[in-house]
Amino acid sequence: MFKATIDADTLKSSIEALSVLVDEARFKISPEGFTVRAVDPANVAMVSFELGSNAFDEFAADDCEIGLDLSKISDIFSVAGKDNKVSMELDEMSQKMSLHLGGLSYTLALLDPSTIRAEPRIPQLELPAEVVLNGKDLQRAVKAAEKISDHMLLGVEDDAFYMEAEGDTDRVRLDIPRDQLIDLRAGDARSLFSLDYLSDIVKPASKSNEVTVEIGKDFPVKIGFTIANGVGKIGYLLAPRIESD
Amino acid sequence: MFKATIDADTLKSSIEALSVLVDEARFKISPEGFTVRAVDPANVAMVSFELGSNAFDEFAADDCEIGLDLSKISDIFSVAGKDNKVSMELDEMSQKMSLHLGGLSYTLALLDPSTIRAEPRIPQLELPAEVVLNGKDLQRAVKAAEKISDHMLLGVEDDAFYMEAEGDTDRVRLDIPRDQLIDLRAGDARSLFSLDYLSDIVKPASKSNEVTVEIGKDFPVKIGFTIANGVGKIGYLLAPRIESD
Amino acid sequence: MFKATIDADTLKSSIEALSVLVDEARFKISPEGFTVRAVDPANVAMVSFELGSNAFDEFAADDCEIGLDLSKISDIFSVAGKDNKVSMELDEMSQKMSLHLGGLSYTLALLDPSTIRAEPRIPQLELPAEVVLNGKDLQRAVKAAEKISDHMLLGVEDDAFYMEAEGDTDRVRLDIPRDQLIDLRAGDARSLFSLDYLSDIVKPASKSNEVTVEIGKDFPVKIGFTIANGVGKIGYLLAPRIESD
Repeated sequence: MFKATIDADTLKSSIEALSVLVDEARFKISPEGFTVRAVDPANVAMVSFELGSNAFDEFAADDCEIGLDLSKISDIFSVAGKDNKVSMELDEMSQKMSLHLGGLSYTLALLDPSTIRAEPRIPQLELPAEVVLNGKDLQRAVKAAEKISDHMLLGVEDDAFYMEAEGDTDRVRLDIPRDQLIDLRAGDARSLFSLDYLSDIVKPASKSNEVTVEIGKDFPVKIGFTIANGVGKIGYLLAPRIESD
Repeated sequence: MFKATIDADTLKSSIEALSVLVDEARFKISPEGFTVRAVDPANVAMVSFELGSNAFDEFAADDCEIGLDLSKISDIFSVAGKDNKVSMELDEMSQKMSLHLGGLSYTLALLDPSTIRAEPRIPQLELPAEVVLNGKDLQRAVKAAEKISDHMLLGVEDDAFYMEAEGDTDRVRLDIPRDQLIDLRAGDARSLFSLDYLSDIVKPASKSNEVTVEIGKDFPVKIGFTIANGVGKIGYLLAPRIESD
Repeated sequence: MFKATIDADTLKSSIEALSVLVDEARFKISPEGFTVRAVDPANVAMVSFELGSNAFDEFAADDCEIGLDLSKISDIFSVAGKDNKVSMELDEMSQKMSLHLGGLSYTLALLDPSTIRAEPRIPQLELPAEVVLNGKDLQRAVKAAEKISDHMLLGVEDDAFYMEAEGDTDRVRLDIPRDQLIDLRAGDARSLFSLDYLSDIVKPASKSNEVTVEIGKDFPVKIGFTIANGVGKIGYLLAPRIESD
């Protein structure tokens, strides 16, 4: 059993955050809310997503797992106006979900969860440095780097967070000192990442005023932020690239 | 003889409404105004258009018929600013029309009306159900349906107007009860239409607060609305598709 | 030696004005400021550009010449916000330029000026007619002409400036009488130009309230305007096409 009502905008942000890595996802539903863990087809990045039942106006659910085609849900929201509520109800017999949104009623066939790649195990990493900053700053550096290179360094140095990209002849760097960051736990950190992934990930992150970036030395980066006033949590884990120099 | 001045915006809306079905049109001009009747190349939809002489700031005409390339006129208006007046004058000798618009003077060669498909006979249909609603509601349902299918049902049931589309696995439906419609004459009505045509037709219709939709049982739909404060009338007639089930 | 700080917007406008004709340019730097003279690859149009040292917040330079890839600079500014200052510093040893802009630091490799086409000699032309008008008016006529033809006449007749384009069957003309111009020095002037070039040139010109157009009879046209409150000057010289009639 699953029946819920939520701000269309919150659900839309959630779907967008997942869509940057996967097209289909298994949603684990329990009385406590939703969780999704997914890994991109190339095994380079993972996303974990939680949306507590208190993010919903109405929420009633037993434990169950459903498979959703994220692009179909995005299509539905592309027609929705602002300030809409969406209500959802699962019909377990027919394996369909009904959605009501701005007067429109949708009946969507669910995907068989067993046909969707299994949930990845999210590795427990203790990363030495942690930076908290505005998502816009992160996005600005990534956009600048894309003009020059296809990968980007993230690191901590001299009590500042830096992002740097180097092309064949040119270089761009953004240093953000501690006093311009929301928070900084300095540590030995410098890792290189693919801009293909980073630019997808910073799109949803750029809407958050407070993005947490955890980095190490040639280790994966963790990029996390909340949605729906902290009730929803989105976290990405992106594998590093090897620096050749 | 034909000489007239009109709001550029009114003429632009008129041309757009015709352009959804045809590229070239025969305009019948008389002292009472303009009329156009045209059928799309595939014979699936017709448009009828009337613009009374009182829609014009200035209008002087004898009976005549001219052929216009609608895309050329659209090009001209794409350069025009808002709040412009356009004045037109026919030169019968050279078969050219001059247009003055925002300081620019155009001289356009007319098309020989005999090279444009003849006016269709618009069938007189008595359709059992009639719905009057905001064009935006019509467009919203059509946009939602396009994501799922290439055809759409329009019908009346239980004192409500409904639009429904069904894809291979999914379904979307919009029910608008009588109290959310401007007017409803209930009757036995349920017909299926091509979304290719419907989505073109609802584009100009969506700008009108009051669109009249007349439907029957496996019969063509009539979609009508006015422009220029009621002085211009646009009506579409779209043939139904056969429901296979 | 070269070190300077300037409004990002002023530098951006300058680069855009050059970019309509060339991808790479030689900048002559002196204690008085910047100058660039360049000719397009097809030898049809020239651009001359001057930006005085007083356009800068800070400016210190010896005589030198640097080669810049304009598209790289445009990329950098595409990331910049409004109201930014950009500071530049030349490193002659490494032949690199560093730019600081909105917190970002760029290090750009310079091009070897000798690999960039030499500065053209700008011919000294005494053109009989001169028109001063708003850049928007010029752009409007060019946009209208593009719909109809690939070349356009500019001329002066009966105390008015006119622009005219003629397609296979259609014609568009804009006449601007003296009282709607900022200034007019009438003279024998009527020349035909390629709209490919004119439409590129009017893009930056359209942002200026006061564009000077000098024309003759089958002679090149000079189109000039200022930026940065008159401290920067941009001038184009476009060769005429032969009228075949």
